[in-house]
Order: sequence, then C-alpha cells, then structure tokens
Amino acid sequence: MNFSDRLAGAVERTGNPVLLGIDPHLDLLPEEFAVARDRSARRVDRAKAVARFCLELVELAKGRVPAVKPQAAFFEELGADGVAAFEEVVDAARDASLLVVGDVKRGDIASTAAAYARAHLAENGGGRCDAITVSPYLGADSLEPFIEAADANEGGLFVLVRTSNPGGTAWQTAGDVPIAGLVADQLTAWGAERLGECGLSNLGAVVGATQAAELAQWRERLPHAWMLLPGYGAQGAGAADVVGAFRSDGLGALVASSRGIAFAYAKDPAGAADWRGAADRALDAMIADLRSAVPHAG
Amino acid sequence: MNFSDRLAGAVERTGNPVLLGIDPHLDLLPEEFAVARDRSARRVDRAKAVARFCLELVELAKGRVPAVKPQAAFFEELGADGVAAFEEVVDAARDASLLVVGDVKRGDIASTAAAYARAHLAENGGGRCDAITVSPYLGADSLEPFIEAADANEGGLFVLVRTSNPGGTAWQTAGDVPIAGLVADQLTAWGAERLGECGLSNLGAVVGATQAAELAQWRERLPHAWMLLPGYGAQGAGAADVVGAFRSDGLGALVASSRGIAFAYAKDPAGAADWRGAADRALDAMIADLRSAVPHAG
Repeated sequence: MNFSDRLAGAVERTGNPVLLGIDPHLDLLPEEFAVARDRSARRVDRAKAVARFCLELVELAKGRVPAVKPQAAFFEELGADGVAAFEEVVDAARDASLLVVGDVKRGDIASTAAAYARAHLAENGGGRCDAITVSPYLGADSLEPFIEAADANEGGLFVLVRTSNPGGTAWQTAGDVPIAGLVADQLTAWGAERLGECGLSNLGAVVGATQAAELAQWRERLPHAWMLLPGYGAQGAGAADVVGAFRSDGLGALVASSRGIAFAYAKDPAGAADWRGAADRALDAMIADLRSAVPHAG
Repeated sequence: MNFSDRLAGAVERTGNPVLLGIDPHLDLLPEEFAVARDRSARRVDRAKAVARFCLELVELAKGRVPAVKPQAAFFEELGADGVAAFEEVVDAARDASLLVVGDVKRGDIASTAAAYARAHLAENGGGRCDAITVSPYLGADSLEPFIEAADANEGGLFVLVRTSNPGGTAWQTAGDVPIAGLVADQLTAWGAERLGECGLSNLGAVVGATQAAELAQWRERLPHAWMLLPGYGAQGAGAADVVGAFRSDGLGALVASSRGIAFAYAKDPAGAADWRGAADRALDAMIADLRSAVPHAG
C-alpha cells in the first residue's frame, strides 16, 4: 500500500499524529546506559547500550503512536557499531508495527543519490525505513532517485522545506524567489501524480512548527504533502502552533518530539530513577495536548 | 597544522590538485569484486569485496595525489558492514599519508549536527576524515557545529555552494538573492578568521566544474576557500574548464574525478582484465591534462 495511506491508517488507528523521535544523545542517556558515553569502553559495547535504550523507546511507542523517527547522527557517532544499532532499532520498530521515518537528511545526485535511497528505503539486510528525510539543496534532479526508490518500495520522503532552527529563515526564504517555495511547488507538482486514497502523496515536507504563522500558508501551498513538524516541546512550539498544518479530518501532519519525551526525566521530580515513567507521562501529555487542539482522526 | 596548510603541503608535494574519488558503485566494480553486487551473498562478504577494491585505489593514489574522496553512499548501501568498510578505507588512506575528504554531504542542526561532526571529524574508533562535505540548506547556524568540530580537530569542511548537476541551477541561483551567494558570502566571512599560512581557510566550497563560466566569479567571491570541483571527466568538464578556480600559485582548488579513474577500464581496450592498468593510465592522463592547463605548485 502507498506510504501515504499506510500513514493515514496508522494515524487513524492510534488517534494521534505523534512522531516519536529516537535521538540517543549520548550525554543525555539515563545513568543505566552510561557506558554509551564512556570513551574508554569498547565502541561495540557503547553501541549496544544505545540500542537497548532505543528499544525501550520502541516499546513505549508501540500501539500508542503511528510512527517513530530515529535520528541517524547519534548512531553514526559510534561508527559502524552505531549503524548496526540503528538497523536493529529500525527493524524492531517495524516489527512493532510502527512506521519508521529515518531522519537521515541525505542528499546527493544521480547514481549516488540512488545508492543512498537503496541504503535506506530498499530491502538491504537490515535497517529499511518506511520513509526518510532528504535535503533538497542539490536541486530537483537530486531528489528524483529518492522518489523512484520511494515509489518502488511503497516508501515515502520528507523533504526539507522550511526548518525550525533560528537560522533557517535567512537562507530558505531569501529574496523574491526563495528556495523553500521552489521546493514546495515542485513537491506539489510531483505529489499530484502520487495521491493515495487519503488524498495525500508519499512526498512529504519538513516544515518547522516554530513557524506557526506560516504553517497555514505552507498547508495551502503543499496540499498533497504530509507535513513533518519538528519544534514541538524542546524547541518551543505547542499544540496551538501546529493546528494550521492539519486537515479538518486530522490527517496531513505529524508532530515530532524527541528530547521532550525520551529525556523527560531531566525535568521530572522522579528524575533518572524513573526515566521510563517520566517518558510515559510526557508521551501521554503530548497526546492529550494535541487532541485538545488539533482535529483528530480515528 | 591547520587543514588548509596541510592540504597546501600535499598539493605542493605531489605537484597536482587531483582529488581521487573512491565511489564503489556496486554495478561497475571489476569482475573480481562481483560478490559485492551479489544480493544472495552475505552482506559482510559483499562489504569486504568493496573494501578490497577501495584499498587498491588507495594504493593507486598513494604518493601521487594529495587527497582522496570516499563517497559514503556506496558504502552505506551495505549497511553497517558497508560503514565498517568505509572506516577501513578512510584509515588506510590516512595511513598512506593521503588527506581524506569524506563525501558525506551531511546537514542538521544544533546537537544533531554536532553528532554528525564528531562522527566524521573526531577520533572515534575509526573512519576519522580530514575534511567532509556538508550541505547548507538548514542555514548558517546549522554549519556552526561542523565548523567548531573542524577547528577543534585541525579538520576542514567543503560546503555545497553551486553543484555540477543540471538541476543545481534552478534552486541554487534563483531570484535576486540566490542561496548559493548567501552561502558563499557567509563562508568568506567565516574563512577570513581562519586563514592558514597559505592564505586559505579550512572552510572550502563545492563548486561544480561544469559551471566553467562562473568559476572565476566564485573564485573572487570565495577568496579564502579551497574549491572542490566535481564534474571533471565523467560529467564533461576538462582542464580548461577548471583553470579559473586556481590561484596563480597553483593552490586553491581540488579537481575531483571518481568514475573516470576507477572505472576507466570500461572505456579501455584492455578492459576489465587490466582494470588496474586502465586506472593507472587514466590517473596519469588526468594529472598531465591538469598540468598542461592549470598553474601548478611544487
């Protein structure tokens, strides 16, 4: 089934649009995983600790949210051992019927882009994602090999359009023909040929939730795109800020949170002694917050 | 020593500005490495064949060119096993006194960008590069963690500015304030504070050699940047096209070629039976071609 419809089904089944980020910042891991940040330990043991932590997040997410988003950078930091952990986490999440958006932000041209796309979207001995994030700097033709792979594997893409960091504005929205708009319009043209039953395509867009005032405009300019909204929680956006990204049936956007859930213990009275409980409560609170403000499917 | 001076020394020592791309396209590998493309073989054995091929390219490059550029995508295609091969190749190239530009085109923000930077530029159990390519779509602040890591590790960056693919133009040079110019000007500002003895900084720029008419303009706009020029050979540019990127002392640019060297056997009468000889002759020809047209150091 088309990725867009698989995602719509998952959002309807769980009744919320949460995309749980799995970002194993080594320095923030609860104490029981401290070996992960011990530079004198064997790298493979550090990576195993990272995997253990992430597999607990997969358990937390299972059946409660539609999708998870492992962040490749924190795995890649531990080299090949970390990438093996990434693959283990991706495979476990898919086994748990979670959709997996690999946050890899890859981008290259021609046969090189095709290799990245095969690496992350095709059956390849482990670590196959349902969708990945990609960066459009190299131009429309650089995205085409990723689209071909997504189409061929019932997968999806989330293309960076307008990001949530303070510095995103200056370069993405400069001048009379900002690159963010060019990327969005190209996605809309491609998406129109790839609509699922839900009326959305497998070509999504990353649009920072911290740009609340702009979200409704992007929603209009990207009518077929699932919007991946980073910035909720740790970066300051709340449910009221993201509402403009949703269709009235509750589909069309995923709200990502990583540190705000996984590392909730740092702000919880129970602290690291109960990091699981803190994450559990933070996830409940996020789901409730979104249900109070955003139309919901399911 | 500052990356810019290390690179200047390597160019002067070898007397040429060739950046040998190590792109193990599985489908193009000579027959003796065919297991690499055999999807029924164990992934680890496929990755070992990839490593073997690449280690031969390292031997080919040793003492003859200043630097090599392994392309992460073709390794990543074989998952964690491929990344282990990437690390082996990077370490072997550094042991052979070649500078290593990891062609990873990573980009992300804040602590995530810092994790990517540590992954590829810091001592980390293998696979540490001297420099990496990065993508600027997310904005100037997204590059800062990479710069910090480069500075701290005597490493360098090559930031995508203007790429060699046909689709690069439409998005990178659109409107009255094109993003490529914004990125270039920011690099120039940062670079001015990071000059080595050679007068160049550790913050380089990727500028496609297929944009010959523009190269001299970019040279002027990026006075402190080492320019990494893809597009020579397979993508159609020749020595005459790249001359505008060089300073009169022969420093300031690296000319990359990957397929044109490693897979020269495909166009050589001797064919795959002598892929090493074909690569060797192609590398000699490229060095001679550049020395005929471009001012050279050393």
